[in-house]
Amino acid sequence: MKPRLFTPGPTPLPERVLRAMHAQPIYHRSEEFRALASRIRTGLHYLFQSSGPVLTLTCSGTGGMESTFVSLFSPGDSVIAVNGGKFGERWVTMARALGLKVIEVRTAWGEDVTAEEILRVLKRHPGARAVYLTYSETSTGTAMDLKTIARVVREHSEALICVDAVTAAGALELRCDAWGIDVCVTGSQKGLMLPPGLALVALSERAISATVTARLPRFYFDLRQALEADKRGDTPWTPAISLVCGLEEALAMIREEGLEAVWWRHARIAAGVRSGMRALGLELFSRSPSNAVTAVRIPDGIAWRDLQRAVDVEGGVTLAGGQGEYGGKIFRIGHLGYVDELDILGLIGALELALVRLGVPLRAGQGVAATQQALAETRLPGEMTHMH
Amino acid sequence: MKPRLFTPGPTPLPERVLRAMHAQPIYHRSEEFRALASRIRTGLHYLFQSSGPVLTLTCSGTGGMESTFVSLFSPGDSVIAVNGGKFGERWVTMARALGLKVIEVRTAWGEDVTAEEILRVLKRHPGARAVYLTYSETSTGTAMDLKTIARVVREHSEALICVDAVTAAGALELRCDAWGIDVCVTGSQKGLMLPPGLALVALSERAISATVTARLPRFYFDLRQALEADKRGDTPWTPAISLVCGLEEALAMIREEGLEAVWWRHARIAAGVRSGMRALGLELFSRSPSNAVTAVRIPDGIAWRDLQRAVDVEGGVTLAGGQGEYGGKIFRIGHLGYVDELDILGLIGALELALVRLGVPLRAGQGVAATQQALAETRLPGEMTHMH
Repeated sequence: MKPRLFTPGPTPLPERVLRAMHAQPIYHRSEEFRALASRIRTGLHYLFQSSGPVLTLTCSGTGGMESTFVSLFSPGDSVIAVNGGKFGERWVTMARALGLKVIEVRTAWGEDVTAEEILRVLKRHPGARAVYLTYSETSTGTAMDLKTIARVVREHSEALICVDAVTAAGALELRCDAWGIDVCVTGSQKGLMLPPGLALVALSERAISATVTARLPRFYFDLRQALEADKRGDTPWTPAISLVCGLEEALAMIREEGLEAVWWRHARIAAGVRSGMRALGLELFSRSPSNAVTAVRIPDGIAWRDLQRAVDVEGGVTLAGGQGEYGGKIFRIGHLGYVDELDILGLIGALELALVRLGVPLRAGQGVAATQQALAETRLPGEMTHMH
Repeated sequence: MKPRLFTPGPTPLPERVLRAMHAQPIYHRSEEFRALASRIRTGLHYLFQSSGPVLTLTCSGTGGMESTFVSLFSPGDSVIAVNGGKFGERWVTMARALGLKVIEVRTAWGEDVTAEEILRVLKRHPGARAVYLTYSETSTGTAMDLKTIARVVREHSEALICVDAVTAAGALELRCDAWGIDVCVTGSQKGLMLPPGLALVALSERAISATVTARLPRFYFDLRQALEADKRGDTPWTPAISLVCGLEEALAMIREEGLEAVWWRHARIAAGVRSGMRALGLELFSRSPSNAVTAVRIPDGIAWRDLQRAVDVEGGVTLAGGQGEYGGKIFRIGHLGYVDELDILGLIGALELALVRLGVPLRAGQGVAATQQALAETRLPGEMTHMH
């Protein structure tokens, strides 16, 4: 069986990206590297739809998030953070560990936060320096209405809008400048179709100003140093060079497909997955499902381990399990990055076979048929076909 | 001209390592990854000659060093740190930025610190919690007598012995257990023959105990969390999976050659480079040269930029320039990792041609002849030939 990752990171690597990384390293203190960095800069502005600097850090997405806390704030500053899953929870824990006061906005797992809730908290805490939002909560497969929330926060507050876009960038619609996002973080192994090891951090002018007055202790994750080096096409510490070479290629692929077409592909595929799941009698976990990852309740009477083994046997498929208290209760399908319609038609077919193998009574093809129908109903809209 | 890196990191990649990394990622929360981590563990114990845990972090060597400061100490703790070059200086700046008191032991660039000097400082500062040492100072090509210094510190103090072995591990003799090293850090893009992006951190029992009481703020670089995850063959955050796959292969290569043979190869090659430099009329910068990197004074009347261009034209060679106040005054030859005798015979030949091109009067072959003689004089000793 061919191994196939349907995990919400790492995601499959295009051959083009693999080939770009299969090379002797270039010296990072050289004209050659600075030229590479400058080509990448254009691609990163496009990806984030941001005109501000986008910094490349060598670390996971978690490290990228840490860089924003330590570089923008001072001890005792208070920030509002939404906690609706494992990653939201992680940012709350992290910010506290690093010396910030965190006003936590908890939502039940699988539910998204509304602009009204954020607004209520902002009014009670007018001194909050920032609002941290997880655009696509990977642990629950839940997306929030970032565009609306960012607009409301901007209208009522000076707080910086800081976004965990780890499973969102390159998958969900994201327009940093237009939506007024101040800080946006992603990791390489998601929509960017690279191995893990890089975090990308986009900053607005307001965020850059905050780095000047911030006093939290920091060194490796000091974005002031990264901003300074970035002006020269440089990084303060040795970057993960092979991944940077892959990044150039991945950004070129996104540019060729067109960013809106990339978002649309993710929307279409996600619609197909959701229809397929429902047709197989499975219940979606999230009330506001993300187009990057679908969380599904495991049917009563089926053990996660058995399901895992069955989809591996039927299609070489690796799915992700539930995290925290949802271990064994949900499974998660990652469908972001280098994933297309055929991939998920195959996936739904294999999942159907796996469920039959586990004794679930299903009519052959009932999941795949629903997926096909959803794909047919969400063809590219006319105004986007020119991007292909 | 074929491009050839003679920089002290990144270093050339073996085809075997490149091939190991040229693969679809494996899911990091899986049995497959835990099995990989367990195979790597054996190789890391061998590399560091340590029986304690060796943690794999996704960051550069600088991040690895930061993890030791924030995970072992509390605000206001004092540590002794040797500053004899750009990296020693960086650790001093970093430790202060993170909230520690640093007792700095400065040595002139190119000179190594002695056990007596460390001992004098230790006696004046009996409360120092640690001594930070840079085994091979990459900016000056200087090695210290780590074995003796570690012994003396152990005899007279309870201070933890913390070693920057970034250009030392896999190049210079290093025996963490036998020498009583508590903390040892390296990066992937040096003796380990990988691209940059991983730091490896070896910890003694005493160092592990220190992580329990440490109170500096930390999250991404919290070694307690890394130690906890490591027991399960896991990492707290997503690791740079492709580099971890390459690491397995690189460690296998070191095991096949034999660690002592690896150290010996570096000693032999370094002797060849030094002899070649002297025969070309060039002055070595360091009084205690490292076997990983040779720093050489740029002759009067020659501009670094011209020399750089000339070696590139004559042999596709990339050398590293001087750092800090030694920019334009010295150049540095990295000869660690996947480097052999033929590489440096070619390098000395190309450097000779470059100098002639720049108007230095030289007899053809005079540098290469001296390198050959040094190689002939430092054949493998009898007791080591069985390792081949």
